[in-house]
Amino acid sequence: MRTVFWEKNELKMIDQRILPGRFEVLSYRGHKEVAHAITDMVVRGAPAIGAAAAFGLALAGYESASSSSSSLLADLQAASATLKAARPTAVNLAWAVDRLMEIASASSAERSADEIRQLILDEAQKLADEDVEINKRMAEHGAALINDGDTIILTICNTGALATVDWGTALGVIRTAHEQGKKIHVFVDETRPRLQGARLTAWELEQYGIPYEIISDNTAGYFLKAGKVQKCFVGSDRTAANGDVANKIGTYMLALAAFDNGVPFYPVVPTSTIDLSLAHGDLIPIEERNPQEVLGLEFEGQRVAPQNAKARNIAFDVTPNRLVTGIVTENGVAYPPFEASLRKVVKE
Amino acid sequence: MRTVFWEKNELKMIDQRILPGRFEVLSYRGHKEVAHAITDMVVRGAPAIGAAAAFGLALAGYESASSSSSSLLADLQAASATLKAARPTAVNLAWAVDRLMEIASASSAERSADEIRQLILDEAQKLADEDVEINKRMAEHGAALINDGDTIILTICNTGALATVDWGTALGVIRTAHEQGKKIHVFVDETRPRLQGARLTAWELEQYGIPYEIISDNTAGYFLKAGKVQKCFVGSDRTAANGDVANKIGTYMLALAAFDNGVPFYPVVPTSTIDLSLAHGDLIPIEERNPQEVLGLEFEGQRVAPQNAKARNIAFDVTPNRLVTGIVTENGVAYPPFEASLRKVVKE
Repeated sequence: MRTVFWEKNELKMIDQRILPGRFEVLSYRGHKEVAHAITDMVVRGAPAIGAAAAFGLALAGYESASSSSSSLLADLQAASATLKAARPTAVNLAWAVDRLMEIASASSAERSADEIRQLILDEAQKLADEDVEINKRMAEHGAALINDGDTIILTICNTGALATVDWGTALGVIRTAHEQGKKIHVFVDETRPRLQGARLTAWELEQYGIPYEIISDNTAGYFLKAGKVQKCFVGSDRTAANGDVANKIGTYMLALAAFDNGVPFYPVVPTSTIDLSLAHGDLIPIEERNPQEVLGLEFEGQRVAPQNAKARNIAFDVTPNRLVTGIVTENGVAYPPFEASLRKVVKE
Repeated sequence: MRTVFWEKNELKMIDQRILPGRFEVLSYRGHKEVAHAITDMVVRGAPAIGAAAAFGLALAGYESASSSSSSLLADLQAASATLKAARPTAVNLAWAVDRLMEIASASSAERSADEIRQLILDEAQKLADEDVEINKRMAEHGAALINDGDTIILTICNTGALATVDWGTALGVIRTAHEQGKKIHVFVDETRPRLQGARLTAWELEQYGIPYEIISDNTAGYFLKAGKVQKCFVGSDRTAANGDVANKIGTYMLALAAFDNGVPFYPVVPTSTIDLSLAHGDLIPIEERNPQEVLGLEFEGQRVAPQNAKARNIAFDVTPNRLVTGIVTENGVAYPPFEASLRKVVKE
């Protein structure tokens, strides 16, 4: 089953907020509900929210009562603004919505409103199908970097099937290497504050039969320093033209620890997440979320933080390109200098 | 109220496992129960467990039925082994027990068993009193490094009154600077897996009226890179002769992020935690604890990790001296090269 899929005029999504405790698929018929689901992290991971937003725009087409293509286009414009505002950091959201809007606009003079409705749904479906194919190509390129033997891989957040339409980015690489018969052990950063590592990556690895151990994010440095880790693979929500990589908060500190110990550090990113319009990573907008995601933690039924405690909850950080060994894409691995190599993989 | 104190022939300790939800003081009459309380982290923090172990040995004296000083000494020897085995990384445990055993042994020929019992209780009390006085001297030296203004300080774990008999080490520095009227804002690393930052440091800062915000440990790198932090102060459970510092897991990654952004990084360590017998930090024994401390996390009443998940739980890491700006002790601040400067502050 895909993480995000279209069935009987509805968008269906696995509810990632309640995994691994419960497995539920939610149905959506309105683009505003899809935007809210993206903000609320029913669906997360750059490729998955791109596909969700694309289907969300297709829903907006059917929600609109417009019979003329020009007034439908105006409704789609409003819906695309709502969807793009759902989360700021992952560039796929805007990329997917813009891709559909371009197709809708380009053909609006010659086509009826209903034809445009069908056109954007078809394009959303195509985008979702492509995501799976792109992930598998990325995974092949990435898996070639993994050696057989006691290779221990460290990863952060969830970058598996759940972060994409299917298969995964960084976790897709690990999965492909495992299917190639390479012996792998994964250290899973639990990934505070939302704990996507402990919740989702551990759950996926269980299903794939890949040996793993969850560690607190703080422990990554210990194992890297102890020489226990051979490679780090992570995802990315947006990569700038110079190879600076925005990803889940904690990625920068993980990259520092990998670099300090000479362990290769590879972001695995579909080219749709590479934003050549941004010269460097400091230009990437960084989302700040509700402090409750930090403060709501319980241990053995007891809340951890004092009742009136204050917190800050930054969702992403930027890893500077100097800490990045190579960037794995569906069109091959880009190496420094990234200005040139990223432009090349994006063109292909 | 002190964290660890002697009252009516009992050792009393604040139960730090249930703070900040509940405040309870537990009473101990046997050294084995004290050793268990140290392992179980009723009491934690290198200086506090040193004092707890000292009073634990005093209890062992009263538990022993021996009427001769030589057989009392044998009982004390057995008890000291039990106490020293309670936790491996913090050197204060051994330091405190050895200090009392030396006094007991040195005088055993001339003294009665009851005189020795009183002698080690007096010494435990003296050690506890000294801890408070040492912390206040450390805090003065450390506070001199903090500038008035919008100084933002980042810290990890709990190094306050609760980690010591009273006042605190790194948090003692912050407290003294605050009492000197310096404007301070503290970013508190929540400190996975045991969350001493979110639980205990936040609770103490509330009481002292010092402004703070809890952050996930992953977020320290973001704020350091954003230029929002002027200083880092941390504790240490054991410092090697070359200035390598063993402290709560995550300290190494925090030090890397501070170093990468030119932010001064100061461990605050009583000289009793400096182990000149160890040439470097890789010789410091590192405790691995129950994986349940990683896996037991709940969020909104729901367990986070899959039911069968595996985890590793390393309690400490070692920060290499190249990342350390200066080491604050009760005898002044030691600067690199630490081999010479640490020897000097220990001698004083």
